Amino acid sequence: MSIRIGIMGYGNLGRGVECAIRNSEDAELVAVFTRRDPKMVDILTPNVPVYSVDQAISKKDDIDVLILCGGSATDLPVQTPKFAEYFNVVDSFDTHAKIPEHFANVDAAAKKGGKVGVISVGWDPGMFSLNRLYANAVLPKGQDYTFWGKGVSQGHSDAIRRIDGVKDARQYTIPVESALEAVRSGETPELTTRQKHTRECFVVAEEGADLERIEREIKTMPNYFADYDTTVHFITEEEMKRDHSTLPHGGFVIRSGKTGWDLEHTHIIEYSLKLDSNPEFTSSVILAYARAAYRLNQEGQSGCKTAFDIAPAYLSAQSGEELRAHLL
Amino acid sequence: MSIRIGIMGYGNLGRGVECAIRNSEDAELVAVFTRRDPKMVDILTPNVPVYSVDQAISKKDDIDVLILCGGSATDLPVQTPKFAEYFNVVDSFDTHAKIPEHFANVDAAAKKGGKVGVISVGWDPGMFSLNRLYANAVLPKGQDYTFWGKGVSQGHSDAIRRIDGVKDARQYTIPVESALEAVRSGETPELTTRQKHTRECFVVAEEGADLERIEREIKTMPNYFADYDTTVHFITEEEMKRDHSTLPHGGFVIRSGKTGWDLEHTHIIEYSLKLDSNPEFTSSVILAYARAAYRLNQEGQSGCKTAFDIAPAYLSAQSGEELRAHLL
Repeated sequence: MSIRIGIMGYGNLGRGVECAIRNSEDAELVAVFTRRDPKMVDILTPNVPVYSVDQAISKKDDIDVLILCGGSATDLPVQTPKFAEYFNVVDSFDTHAKIPEHFANVDAAAKKGGKVGVISVGWDPGMFSLNRLYANAVLPKGQDYTFWGKGVSQGHSDAIRRIDGVKDARQYTIPVESALEAVRSGETPELTTRQKHTRECFVVAEEGADLERIEREIKTMPNYFADYDTTVHFITEEEMKRDHSTLPHGGFVIRSGKTGWDLEHTHIIEYSLKLDSNPEFTSSVILAYARAAYRLNQEGQSGCKTAFDIAPAYLSAQSGEELRAHLL
Repeated sequence: MSIRIGIMGYGNLGRGVECAIRNSEDAELVAVFTRRDPKMVDILTPNVPVYSVDQAISKKDDIDVLILCGGSATDLPVQTPKFAEYFNVVDSFDTHAKIPEHFANVDAAAKKGGKVGVISVGWDPGMFSLNRLYANAVLPKGQDYTFWGKGVSQGHSDAIRRIDGVKDARQYTIPVESALEAVRSGETPELTTRQKHTRECFVVAEEGADLERIEREIKTMPNYFADYDTTVHFITEEEMKRDHSTLPHGGFVIRSGKTGWDLEHTHIIEYSLKLDSNPEFTSSVILAYARAAYRLNQEGQSGCKTAFDIAPAYLSAQSGEELRAHLL
């Protein structure tokens, strides 16, 4: 019997979940919900209905887990608590500072409905968080480092697009290799923002735009670019399409820790991701946690969970016996 | 209130646990048990008693978790089930093929006594197993690679020491860099044993021993060396002491997986360890799982668990709120 999945929101992430379902053994897509006109939304999977968001709750008995694919800024803070009362849900809420509040809201709703709501899964928060936790628990004396990239930051790309005279833009976040090497060598440097990452921008300008002004506005933009070494390349629309149409990403979580009676031994734990498609990888993590949400609820559990609260075995389609025999 | 820990067996691993307790916030060493004459065993922690193994069960009410630091060949198959009836226990049983049987024995004993027995924690099995599971659950279409080293293999070092004319030996397992690079690049090569690791041996021979014969016996030893490219260096006792007295180890778990409607995107998940001291790192993992065993039992759970069955939050001394605020 497969787990019946509904997808709420059909953008990059929703399409990624759809692909992850196709590549899984035990999940099945049963419905997609959209805020657009359902007739205008073409999905990849044959014979699966597309409904309006407003119809979602009426389908609650046909769906084991509803995966929420909206954005963290305005969609998920409303949608996740709303639907957690009626469905087991999973989201990828990634506004780190607001996670405690989101957790409390989802927890109350999910408990009211007797459902499980898994929040903030993906890779950061998600797999990176797990690795921070495991590494901290194992090496309590030590220091954490997270590096992102090389990859496309959509928030930074959007920020450039809002500059006057910019037609399109793509921003890559790049970890500084020498900083990575220093951390891996067992040094525990205090690294400034500038020492950890550089930012590389590819910009299509409107005809006749003042390129010098655009470059200056990018490089001095507070929060986004001012604290980094930033390079700006002006390219053509064709080059943008040809060379920058995918969404790769990745990064590194490193803990450098000490053990021994006098802390005389150094250990480096490193977790890294190199992803061709940020949304598809995020979706794959989400689907694994959808399996967990379903199983936990089948066992009678309810309330909000994060990756920290879920035993790893719940993520796998294999049984405990199979896991012990093949992966332990 | 701290978790009261007992250590069963005071070798490299037992001493590692003792150091890990010193570096933790919430654990306290209350007793060490040994098969030797307790009067002959000097431990590092002041004012902690050393008892004979036979006295262990009489101390059961003073100990929250008993950590079993014996070997997997003969000690743990007997000790873990025996003591799991009286104590929450943790071991690092690492004979992969016998884990299902060990699990069943410990599960029966722990359930009988209402205790929790955590088996097979350390780094492999342990942290490496966790990373194999998470990566497989997230990327069901893909291939796993585990590389070990560079580090000292004690089993292989012992095998060399059993050769006639050998006084001392140290064997390093070394991953083949080109194989690692191929896997990281997204290729999914089928690698033979020889293509994944090389073996480097440092040997102190007895005076007048036939070095050519020793080298030949090492290189042709079935299972241990015959399937590998092996190099042998003869060194002096002084060089052994000076250059090879520590027990570093490490390794890499890599999953190369595909996502997308037609599996068109590649993702590389890599977890690696670089350890100055294999026993101290293993002990640090064990102590984190001792914390988990204690908490699970406080919640009323019993039976055998592996790293797969334990939610990550149980390993950390921090509360759920703290973890969500700082590590998610």
